[in-house]
Amino acid sequence: MADAPLRVIPLGGLGEIGRNMMALEQDGDIVVIDAGVLFPEEGMPGVDFAIPDISYLVERKSAVKAILITHGHEDHIGALPYVLPELDVPVYASRLAHGLISVKLRERGQLKNARLNIVEPNSPFKVGRFKVEFFRVCHSIPDAMGIAVETSLGLVVHTGDFKIDHTPADGKTTDFTALARFASEGVVLLCSDSTYAEIEGYTPSEQVVGEALDRAIGDAKGRVMVATFASLISRVQQVIDAAAKHGRHVTVIGRSMVNNVKMATRMGYLNDPGGIVVSLGKARQLPNERVVILATGAQGEPTSALVRISNGEHPDIEIVPGDTVVISASPIPGNDTLVAKTIDNLYRQQANVLYSKIALVHVHGHGSREELKMMLSLVKPKFFVPVHGEYRHLVAHAAIARATGVHESNAFVLEDGDVLELTEKRGKIVDKIPAGPVFVDGNRLWSSYSDVLDERRKLARDGIVVVSMTLDRKTGRLRGAPEVAATGFVDMQDSPELLERTAQEVRSTLDQYRSDRLDLDGAKAGVVKAVSKFLHDETGMRPKIVAHIGQV
Amino acid sequence: MADAPLRVIPLGGLGEIGRNMMALEQDGDIVVIDAGVLFPEEGMPGVDFAIPDISYLVERKSAVKAILITHGHEDHIGALPYVLPELDVPVYASRLAHGLISVKLRERGQLKNARLNIVEPNSPFKVGRFKVEFFRVCHSIPDAMGIAVETSLGLVVHTGDFKIDHTPADGKTTDFTALARFASEGVVLLCSDSTYAEIEGYTPSEQVVGEALDRAIGDAKGRVMVATFASLISRVQQVIDAAAKHGRHVTVIGRSMVNNVKMATRMGYLNDPGGIVVSLGKARQLPNERVVILATGAQGEPTSALVRISNGEHPDIEIVPGDTVVISASPIPGNDTLVAKTIDNLYRQQANVLYSKIALVHVHGHGSREELKMMLSLVKPKFFVPVHGEYRHLVAHAAIARATGVHESNAFVLEDGDVLELTEKRGKIVDKIPAGPVFVDGNRLWSSYSDVLDERRKLARDGIVVVSMTLDRKTGRLRGAPEVAATGFVDMQDSPELLERTAQEVRSTLDQYRSDRLDLDGAKAGVVKAVSKFLHDETGMRPKIVAHIGQV
Repeated sequence: MADAPLRVIPLGGLGEIGRNMMALEQDGDIVVIDAGVLFPEEGMPGVDFAIPDISYLVERKSAVKAILITHGHEDHIGALPYVLPELDVPVYASRLAHGLISVKLRERGQLKNARLNIVEPNSPFKVGRFKVEFFRVCHSIPDAMGIAVETSLGLVVHTGDFKIDHTPADGKTTDFTALARFASEGVVLLCSDSTYAEIEGYTPSEQVVGEALDRAIGDAKGRVMVATFASLISRVQQVIDAAAKHGRHVTVIGRSMVNNVKMATRMGYLNDPGGIVVSLGKARQLPNERVVILATGAQGEPTSALVRISNGEHPDIEIVPGDTVVISASPIPGNDTLVAKTIDNLYRQQANVLYSKIALVHVHGHGSREELKMMLSLVKPKFFVPVHGEYRHLVAHAAIARATGVHESNAFVLEDGDVLELTEKRGKIVDKIPAGPVFVDGNRLWSSYSDVLDERRKLARDGIVVVSMTLDRKTGRLRGAPEVAATGFVDMQDSPELLERTAQEVRSTLDQYRSDRLDLDGAKAGVVKAVSKFLHDETGMRPKIVAHIGQV
Repeated sequence: MADAPLRVIPLGGLGEIGRNMMALEQDGDIVVIDAGVLFPEEGMPGVDFAIPDISYLVERKSAVKAILITHGHEDHIGALPYVLPELDVPVYASRLAHGLISVKLRERGQLKNARLNIVEPNSPFKVGRFKVEFFRVCHSIPDAMGIAVETSLGLVVHTGDFKIDHTPADGKTTDFTALARFASEGVVLLCSDSTYAEIEGYTPSEQVVGEALDRAIGDAKGRVMVATFASLISRVQQVIDAAAKHGRHVTVIGRSMVNNVKMATRMGYLNDPGGIVVSLGKARQLPNERVVILATGAQGEPTSALVRISNGEHPDIEIVPGDTVVISASPIPGNDTLVAKTIDNLYRQQANVLYSKIALVHVHGHGSREELKMMLSLVKPKFFVPVHGEYRHLVAHAAIARATGVHESNAFVLEDGDVLELTEKRGKIVDKIPAGPVFVDGNRLWSSYSDVLDERRKLARDGIVVVSMTLDRKTGRLRGAPEVAATGFVDMQDSPELLERTAQEVRSTLDQYRSDRLDLDGAKAGVVKAVSKFLHDETGMRPKIVAHIGQV
């Protein structure tokens, strides 16, 4: 009998970056890789974040054998608190990712019921009908893993987020040996990180950044402040090392940075040779030229330490001339303006600022085109599915795969919800399941939220005007004056004449509806229409109009 | 007697890109350079655009002798319809800029009263006490000019937007001869374009783009669509030339592109050798491999031709497999996501897409660091004021000036509203005048609009809930049920239970305020507070609450 087909089902992260999740299904068994969140884009005002739609998995609960986690970034683990209550399955992760997941679940009282397992690289284990092996890759967080899943059709290799760095900060390189071994065993499918599939060449090594940080800290005459991602533990290590070398101490500010440095030190991911890291109180007693401040805020997050410092609003720290600020990160798309404003404000405070556009103080964690080719050449897959990327990145990566030997019809540009079925002979998209984002706003989940988001965008454009009035049920006459209040529109309290003429417009509209039996809905609609037209004629704007009519 | 000091007053474009405007003042005479708009940023929902605050100029109306325009881009001419009614002064501009200004003023019925003058380069003329000479620079629009203003302290040279291109598409290079002549006469002040002061090296020549477009059009098997800025006439010429060479016709879609191509052809800025440009109707009769479509939408503008095509929503044109789309522009900061989504959607429609990140199909119009050094070395100014740039660009440009020989204390990083006073000996910031943005929203101007924008941002985050009720003036009792309506919040009509419990919350709050003399404001505030807390507890969100209480 022929082998059962293998189904490859991206539930997030394909065609849109973030909330990464993928299911592999064969012969009634399912394994899931990652369970991430997507942080909101411009078009989603007020949304906290988006998670994958897991209804396909929930309908097949008993088939789901495990969730495998590639690494501890939010876009790979952030949905677990929402997924685990629905799917009571074991979670397998490397040691650091396990630590980060534990913190997240403990905060929500979910840790006790979770079935978390630590996985060592190159130590295969069984999950349902599948045999699974984690292998090391380089990325911008320690303990990042790729995953090989043995199926009856051959190996599926999923890279997770990766780059190829021969001199990473922690010395742990992408595991070429394992990849070559997989190739010799036969790889039926490669799923590979596409984030930088547009970028020519190689992503520079972390070593380059280490050297740049060393130079920046060595050259600085005064205090140095370094802002980076709280999860970028290797960068923190580079800062500690450079500080130690140049006779400085490091103090850490910003809640997430403080927590991560503590956790990483306790777990052995950070090495502090001889008490370089000190409290802020201790650092304040040192001369400026002996201090490095490590802070959050590299993405211009409005409540972060760096941004508050750049605005002169931080309770403990203010910029003094002679300070050097290093922004050791590049802006995530969408954050460019926030980061640029932060840099501008730091300059306004007379700091010297080093940032990725003018100095080599950051490299990112994803492989560029030559590294993607290298991965394809090492693994030699029969089928190829680019993962982690917006649509054009997937298209570019599929073209790379074809150029490196994957057969034209064996590279599939999928989107979330596409069900790809692979047999020994061929692959085919056989189904499309619901995989749209589920929004988390406040303490609720919303699978369909687009109407509310539409309304918010409209509100943001021209604001809202509320007209409220009371009518006499018998006579249909207005009782008292109509009340008009505007929010996000012209400040009508400052324009009494506009206010009065709007109220007059309401009165004369209502006059047309007066009768023995008031048509309440008609009157409401009439008021909305009349006020809307009047205000547009007056101001050129189109605020949303809400009319309330009470009757007594 | 010593010469009167020269005052340099940036009114826009310094510290924030766009709405460029600068005043030069000496001995009671003022000339103004440029009068541009700023298109809204993310934080300004609903605002159409921002213009400079010209109250300083309006208070000195009779001193203002002229407005000099460097080139015809909106960020240099867009404020004229608002400025000219306040300042009845002559406007001097090069021929193409004059044409664009005329169109703009005619649309608003302002052309008749305007005093517009065409200026030829290297033809000095008098404006009050100043002698003015325009000189050619290269930029992304034809007829771009720098301006030299002769003062009793020496020449002021203002570059406008510029780059140094030895092989521009129209053959008209930046006028080194004039710049060298100015240097020999003595330049007291250089104001130079800082937009790309962060970027190392030289901006590539337009020629490189011409070659890339030629290759793209020559290689394409099917139809080619090129999207670019409507004002980038030289790019349009390159497309026409490449089409002619490869036996194709060009058809133009998108209102602003159609208008600009007509105007530029009529004025002689576009050369159509032998009827290459044809109507859409004619182009539809040609085989795909003989057609180039020139379109707007290179910035992902939602209503543009390209974006509607990418969404499959254009009435006349749809993508067919084999189409090549060239996006000959790079995203302006803030538009990155819109452009990226457009590219993704074009790929989804099976087009082959070439864009600036993966192909050399665009160069921008501003000089990079080596060109800025070249300008400084040619002009040899005593004082230096970097213009056109966000704060960090100005800082970087001032550092370049110091590195090329401007004295440490003679390079001034100004911001809008700073009044720099120059004498033969030294420069000093002597005053700060109001120069914040004036917002244009609908048909009104708003000099202070931040409260309204704050409100809009809040509305966009969590929406608004309006609670409306009628009370009996005598008894303080509620007459009828409180009405609750939500916009941009949870769809409360779909949550009758939440609606009913909110109304119940209102009732029980009002009970606490019932008395002979109702404290109306207190009751309102009480309702707002109670509903706000209730909804936050229920949903985790914080919508704005508006309460209306009518009395009968």
